Amino acid sequence: MQKSVLVLHGPNLNLLGVREPAIYGVTSLEDVDARLKAEGANLGVTVRSFQSNHEGALIDAVHDARKWSNGILINPGGYGHTSVALRDAIKAVGLPCVEVHVSNVQAREGFRHTSLITPVCVGCVAGFGWRSYLWGLHGLAAVIAESEER
Amino acid sequence: MQKSVLVLHGPNLNLLGVREPAIYGVTSLEDVDARLKAEGANLGVTVRSFQSNHEGALIDAVHDARKWSNGILINPGGYGHTSVALRDAIKAVGLPCVEVHVSNVQAREGFRHTSLITPVCVGCVAGFGWRSYLWGLHGLAAVIAESEER
Amino acid sequence: MQKSVLVLHGPNLNLLGVREPAIYGVTSLEDVDARLKAEGANLGVTVRSFQSNHEGALIDAVHDARKWSNGILINPGGYGHTSVALRDAIKAVGLPCVEVHVSNVQAREGFRHTSLITPVCVGCVAGFGWRSYLWGLHGLAAVIAESEER
Amino acid sequence: MQKSVLVLHGPNLNLLGVREPAIYGVTSLEDVDARLKAEGANLGVTVRSFQSNHEGALIDAVHDARKWSNGILINPGGYGHTSVALRDAIKAVGLPCVEVHVSNVQAREGFRHTSLITPVCVGCVAGFGWRSYLWGLHGLAAVIAESEER
Amino acid sequence: MQKSVLVLHGPNLNLLGVREPAIYGVTSLEDVDARLKAEGANLGVTVRSFQSNHEGALIDAVHDARKWSNGILINPGGYGHTSVALRDAIKAVGLPCVEVHVSNVQAREGFRHTSLITPVCVGCVAGFGWRSYLWGLHGLAAVIAESEER
Amino acid sequence: MQKSVLVLHGPNLNLLGVREPAIYGVTSLEDVDARLKAEGANLGVTVRSFQSNHEGALIDAVHDARKWSNGILINPGGYGHTSVALRDAIKAVGLPCVEVHVSNVQAREGFRHTSLITPVCVGCVAGFGWRSYLWGLHGLAAVIAESEER
Amino acid sequence: MQKSVLVLHGPNLNLLGVREPAIYGVTSLEDVDARLKAEGANLGVTVRSFQSNHEGALIDAVHDARKWSNGILINPGGYGHTSVALRDAIKAVGLPCVEVHVSNVQAREGFRHTSLITPVCVGCVAGFGWRSYLWGLHGLAAVIAESEER
Amino acid sequence: MQKSVLVLHGPNLNLLGVREPAIYGVTSLEDVDARLKAEGANLGVTVRSFQSNHEGALIDAVHDARKWSNGILINPGGYGHTSVALRDAIKAVGLPCVEVHVSNVQAREGFRHTSLITPVCVGCVAGFGWRSYLWGLHGLAAVIAESEER
Amino acid sequence: MQKSVLVLHGPNLNLLGVREPAIYGVTSLEDVDARLKAEGANLGVTVRSFQSNHEGALIDAVHDARKWSNGILINPGGYGHTSVALRDAIKAVGLPCVEVHVSNVQAREGFRHTSLITPVCVGCVAGFGWRSYLWGLHGLAAVIAESEER
Amino acid sequence: MQKSVLVLHGPNLNLLGVREPAIYGVTSLEDVDARLKAEGANLGVTVRSFQSNHEGALIDAVHDARKWSNGILINPGGYGHTSVALRDAIKAVGLPCVEVHVSNVQAREGFRHTSLITPVCVGCVAGFGWRSYLWGLHGLAAVIAESEER
Amino acid sequence: MQKSVLVLHGPNLNLLGVREPAIYGVTSLEDVDARLKAEGANLGVTVRSFQSNHEGALIDAVHDARKWSNGILINPGGYGHTSVALRDAIKAVGLPCVEVHVSNVQAREGFRHTSLITPVCVGCVAGFGWRSYLWGLHGLAAVIAESEER
Amino acid sequence: MQKSVLVLHGPNLNLLGVREPAIYGVTSLEDVDARLKAEGANLGVTVRSFQSNHEGALIDAVHDARKWSNGILINPGGYGHTSVALRDAIKAVGLPCVEVHVSNVQAREGFRHTSLITPVCVGCVAGFGWRSYLWGLHGLAAVIAESEER
Repeated sequence: MQKSVLVLHGPNLNLLGVREPAIYGVTSLEDVDARLKAEGANLGVTVRSFQSNHEGALIDAVHDARKWSNGILINPGGYGHTSVALRDAIKAVGLPCVEVHVSNVQAREGFRHTSLITPVCVGCVAGFGWRSYLWGLHGLAAVIAESEER
Repeated sequence: MQKSVLVLHGPNLNLLGVREPAIYGVTSLEDVDARLKAEGANLGVTVRSFQSNHEGALIDAVHDARKWSNGILINPGGYGHTSVALRDAIKAVGLPCVEVHVSNVQAREGFRHTSLITPVCVGCVAGFGWRSYLWGLHGLAAVIAESEER
Repeated sequence: MQKSVLVLHGPNLNLLGVREPAIYGVTSLEDVDARLKAEGANLGVTVRSFQSNHEGALIDAVHDARKWSNGILINPGGYGHTSVALRDAIKAVGLPCVEVHVSNVQAREGFRHTSLITPVCVGCVAGFGWRSYLWGLHGLAAVIAESEER
Repeated sequence: MQKSVLVLHGPNLNLLGVREPAIYGVTSLEDVDARLKAEGANLGVTVRSFQSNHEGALIDAVHDARKWSNGILINPGGYGHTSVALRDAIKAVGLPCVEVHVSNVQAREGFRHTSLITPVCVGCVAGFGWRSYLWGLHGLAAVIAESEER
Repeated sequence: MQKSVLVLHGPNLNLLGVREPAIYGVTSLEDVDARLKAEGANLGVTVRSFQSNHEGALIDAVHDARKWSNGILINPGGYGHTSVALRDAIKAVGLPCVEVHVSNVQAREGFRHTSLITPVCVGCVAGFGWRSYLWGLHGLAAVIAESEER
Repeated sequence: MQKSVLVLHGPNLNLLGVREPAIYGVTSLEDVDARLKAEGANLGVTVRSFQSNHEGALIDAVHDARKWSNGILINPGGYGHTSVALRDAIKAVGLPCVEVHVSNVQAREGFRHTSLITPVCVGCVAGFGWRSYLWGLHGLAAVIAESEER
Repeated sequence: MQKSVLVLHGPNLNLLGVREPAIYGVTSLEDVDARLKAEGANLGVTVRSFQSNHEGALIDAVHDARKWSNGILINPGGYGHTSVALRDAIKAVGLPCVEVHVSNVQAREGFRHTSLITPVCVGCVAGFGWRSYLWGLHGLAAVIAESEER
Repeated sequence: MQKSVLVLHGPNLNLLGVREPAIYGVTSLEDVDARLKAEGANLGVTVRSFQSNHEGALIDAVHDARKWSNGILINPGGYGHTSVALRDAIKAVGLPCVEVHVSNVQAREGFRHTSLITPVCVGCVAGFGWRSYLWGLHGLAAVIAESEER
Repeated sequence: MQKSVLVLHGPNLNLLGVREPAIYGVTSLEDVDARLKAEGANLGVTVRSFQSNHEGALIDAVHDARKWSNGILINPGGYGHTSVALRDAIKAVGLPCVEVHVSNVQAREGFRHTSLITPVCVGCVAGFGWRSYLWGLHGLAAVIAESEER
Repeated sequence: MQKSVLVLHGPNLNLLGVREPAIYGVTSLEDVDARLKAEGANLGVTVRSFQSNHEGALIDAVHDARKWSNGILINPGGYGHTSVALRDAIKAVGLPCVEVHVSNVQAREGFRHTSLITPVCVGCVAGFGWRSYLWGLHGLAAVIAESEER
Repeated sequence: MQKSVLVLHGPNLNLLGVREPAIYGVTSLEDVDARLKAEGANLGVTVRSFQSNHEGALIDAVHDARKWSNGILINPGGYGHTSVALRDAIKAVGLPCVEVHVSNVQAREGFRHTSLITPVCVGCVAGFGWRSYLWGLHGLAAVIAESEER
Repeated sequence: MQKSVLVLHGPNLNLLGVREPAIYGVTSLEDVDARLKAEGANLGVTVRSFQSNHEGALIDAVHDARKWSNGILINPGGYGHTSVALRDAIKAVGLPCVEVHVSNVQAREGFRHTSLITPVCVGCVAGFGWRSYLWGLHGLAAVIAESEER
């Protein structure tokens, strides 16, 4: 049966491909979304994307996903290190969630080593540029399929 | 003389009664608001509620309360642990403020033990489910009445 | 069916109403106990009070409560920040326990922010002067009633 | 050649002149903006101001400044201590940025001593009331002029 | 020659066998004392027991042991993590002391990892239920015998 | 006019002169009290002494001193590092208090560097053996005399 | 051109599929290696595996990889949290390295949150059971291919 | 029925009886093993010993014990403070494990106060020289016997 | 009325313009002083400068300023992070003081984030090269003028 | 036999009686020195005083004291919290040293709680204004006399 | 009389001259050993070298040195920061030990600032490339010669 | 070509040979300087020495060395742990600098483990008494010679 997932892009990811390409690469967010949709088609997963720089809008989107989605692929950006509210939202909706990061966050500044999101996620992919999303989507699809079987 | 208070619900409280009932109970936010309005009537206090998942919207609401309210009853949710801006807003408007929590936050994860809001509040009620709001409202009403007398 | 609760006052609370009234108010401990007994009558709860400056005496009282009480309302005073033994006593007897503080302890000196008692309590009321006891008693009565139903 | 700068006011600065005048002074935000525009005229710098209590709106404004501005003068308010997302935004757009504070933040509560914004700014002015903006604008104009020469 | 030892039980150990049997087992304190007396008889050691929930009473007992005892077997309970005074008492009387714990304290909550008593004790046995006392007594007897020989 | 002071000796000080003489000297507590009474006579100060190993008994004595004493000279022993309750008692009674230590506590183990008592005392004398009491008494007498003059 | 990679399994991974299946799954290490070899064939990458419980043997293997391999896929197990020597080895050989974990380590005990290996790796995949290796291999292959192009 | 246990000696214990006798005593490792075998005979437990200075060899031995042993008696030596890998090994095999130390480690240098092994062990005996092993063996035998009964 | 201010340059500032120009710029201390004197003339403020590498000489200069100056403009250099004595001197003389730094110290090494001087200063300017002094002088002049008015 | 002591006044003490009288009192340094000389005469001790704001000059004075003095009475001022060099000087000369503070430093800001000097001193007197010196001198005289007897 | 020393090279030093030459230089380990042998000949010291990436093998070598060596020259590499077991080995054998590092470790990453080895060594040489070994050997020879004389 | 180096002795080193000989040895500073001059002659290096207890005088000497010296050999004494100003001076002059310590500072009190000087030095020699200077001089000469060659 066809599944649906929400791909949630946090703050500053609208600048992907533009902002600091040495760290974040040259692929734009539109390209990423297009590739994820294509890959989703192969995996039997409908992909819907949303980006916002507003913590509250991200939380609203997580809440909304309860109504139509089977899982969440989230790049929390800077809010991953600071937002208890976003964490609580993910935990509250109870959907399987996979965390992705374009850069290898654990290898950067100290304040990026703390993630409030990780403990409410199933897994994490970081450091592979836009491809982090790609393998994160595979991971999420596999988790959804497995929970199906049970 | 009739008093007015703002009841401010922070992020994820729109899911009250739905989200993790083992921790947060089964009473919905609408029910809570209805009961607070009824109790307010007994106490001579008009209750106006507002919920948002947006930190900025909560701050706007605090600012707005200067114009019509005698005090604030706030469940800051996750923002209570991270928002210097919300704290500054409460301090700035100078209204008496009471903090409530549905769960007993000091008994949960370490990052919930730090509250930036508490030092600018008069008092705190936590751990009694939706009833935390009830006794918090009583407390706020008493504080307003007392400051009246002086 | 009529219920019984132990109200336990920790160190220095015998000076309530006398000691630093700017922080602790002017109501004496005797007054507090009288009001709690009256309020208990309304709630169908018999209230028995005990105050001591001795950590061991407070522990003995907690142990004794196993034999006759349905719950404990405790203002641990300074021992709340330092007494592992008192915490263990509360956990050992297995009665529902509510913590109250006359002042808003989380808003005071750093050493008052750590509470060893909170994690073994159901909830907490702080910052409303003697009224913290009042609403704590309501909370405890509700918790006892609910556990009854199950 | 005429330059343009964005003056960005963070949370609660809409209350400037009203909120806690002992700390923040009696000059209103409108007055500050008017004086900055006048001073900008002297310096050959067009000044555009924006205030918001919403972290996301501030980030959006920083992103937007890439299209028309030569630099940013920011009073991050409470978000300066907590917002990794705002820091990332400033770093992402690559414009010279100067941080200002009305009060001397390093001399206040401990949680105000950590600034996530400072490391992505050229310089900082704090403690001179509304005049912190004035000298911050001079500083920013000088930085823009110098980078011009290179 | 016959030796004497004081077995000192700290706070809440009067509830042994009753309190949280999953952690502390079902053997009562009377049973423990009886078995230690019997085992002491085999080892040529007279065993005298004392339990109190009062820190001061435990200190008094340590002081008193100087007059008649050759060593102390102590389960400090919660006071082991908080009592500088008890530690000073043990150090002051100069008797060999062995520390025992019913549960494996180093494997429990963080505040139980600090022991003020350990550095003034010869050794420690923890985690074997009431048998921790048994092997602690053997250890203490061996230490007394060895110091005899020297 | 003749003044009265309470000299309060904390835990283990009953062993003074006996316990670890290399650290604490060979003068007994009785001797110390006798010398303080004699010195008090010279200073126009009646000296009453009390020693206990019980934290609660020390608190009771502090409370009692409100009724008859003009100041307190306290050697808190181990409780000085751990007792919030004793600190609160001293603050509550509002009498001038001087802290003394037989050894130079700040030069010993780390856990002796924290004193909860110091911030509620006027001054401190440490490291001079029994003479710490002597000069502490002089200091207390001077403080009482000065407050008299005002 | 055909590439070669070393798949390095750290301590206890020989028990994969056997040890704590609730955390680590039921797929054996032999299965994982077989699947990686098959997947490698698809990707044009020859996969050679090595498992050891010996830190030194893992370091030797990293050194040896300089002679024949184009990259390393490592599950450092417990040594990832403690081994400066293994980190130095990876940095010394200068091969691209990808870190994988079967479980979501950042969501487990605190001592698993520190990784000495991450800062010398390109990226990380964690929490997807044996599939973490699969997507890690894809990531490593992509990194090798890209560095080829430059 | 006859039981079997592995006695595992960590690094430097081959020097027992030789190394720093003031701390570790004069009994050699061979003597210890002989006495444990003899005591095991009394307890109906076959004892097999293994010593290594290699962390990996200790892990291999723990793994191997799954095939023939009913429990492990381990003196982890220095690896107890640093080896996540050894801890994971003990947890992975699921055998009851008892930790012993010749000296009273919690009373020595700060870096010896952290034990990664303790939380995966049933109990601990420390400070009694070679006898720590003796009573640790008794403890392990009792644990095995009890789990038998269930 | 003409005012006077002391401009105090701390350690290594005699090398300004010479030392690490990438961080500190190419303007020499003589140039800075000349510009400050000229700017002072415009502001109606007489400027006297003093530089020393000696902490004690800086303290002496602060003390001396009580006799002739209306305020202090200080670049404490390295002493700002370490000198309690210099801080006490500024606090003792009671003159308004403004802190300046050539580089943006809060954006550099961790040990430069702590300033002992800031809490006794009115404000701070950092990161604008020699111009930090310029705007710091303006700030100090404004503060002096304002205190005049009161 | 007549003894000699050095009284060493650290930074800012030249302002005694002038600086912040609410904290430091109104007695000038000259007065303090005169009273110490007079009291020294009573005690058979010649008193020589030295004040400097220069850490190096204080160290030189400590070194010089080896040639003529029997002990040192030091008020280290701000250097007591920061100067390893001054501590090493006191330890190096091997004279008995007593530390005095005019205010009760342990009751003030956190950075005043650390004293590098205390561990190389015999004792400490703090909080009695200029009288701290007086009783410190008595203490030093007693220590010198006692060491004489041995 | 001819002396013998063990030169012990820790993990990754087999790559010396190959690995990261900007940090570790271009001299190979064979060259270093040859030069140390030659220098040893001048100093009357026979040099035997051993390198291993295995912590256990290094410990074994330290133990073995008891039988034939007069001292140890050790470059512990990464194990110096993490190995309690290696530290215990050095302390256990009781030979004088000198620590060397090719790079200036105290000037690198934070986790390299902690050395478990230093407290059991006589001295340390760091930062001079392969020459650190050379002067370390001189230092060790001098220490051996001096202990000879005593 | 003949080179020149400054040998800089920090506080208390004028007492070398006199002060605590168990830690610092019996060789005087004059002897050390004489030996360094002789050794310098062998190495083609002119040695000039300077000792001061004044932090500022040491900084002045470092500055002065820019005019005539090719490198600095510094024993910073206590200032090495506390002086940001001295560190900045060394960094500012840009000469190669070698740090020496008579004792093995990293093996002593905790506050001696932090060195502000090390990160701006090439290397460090510690623990060999006066010979630390000797091998430090060799190291400095080699560093100067090598930088010559480039």
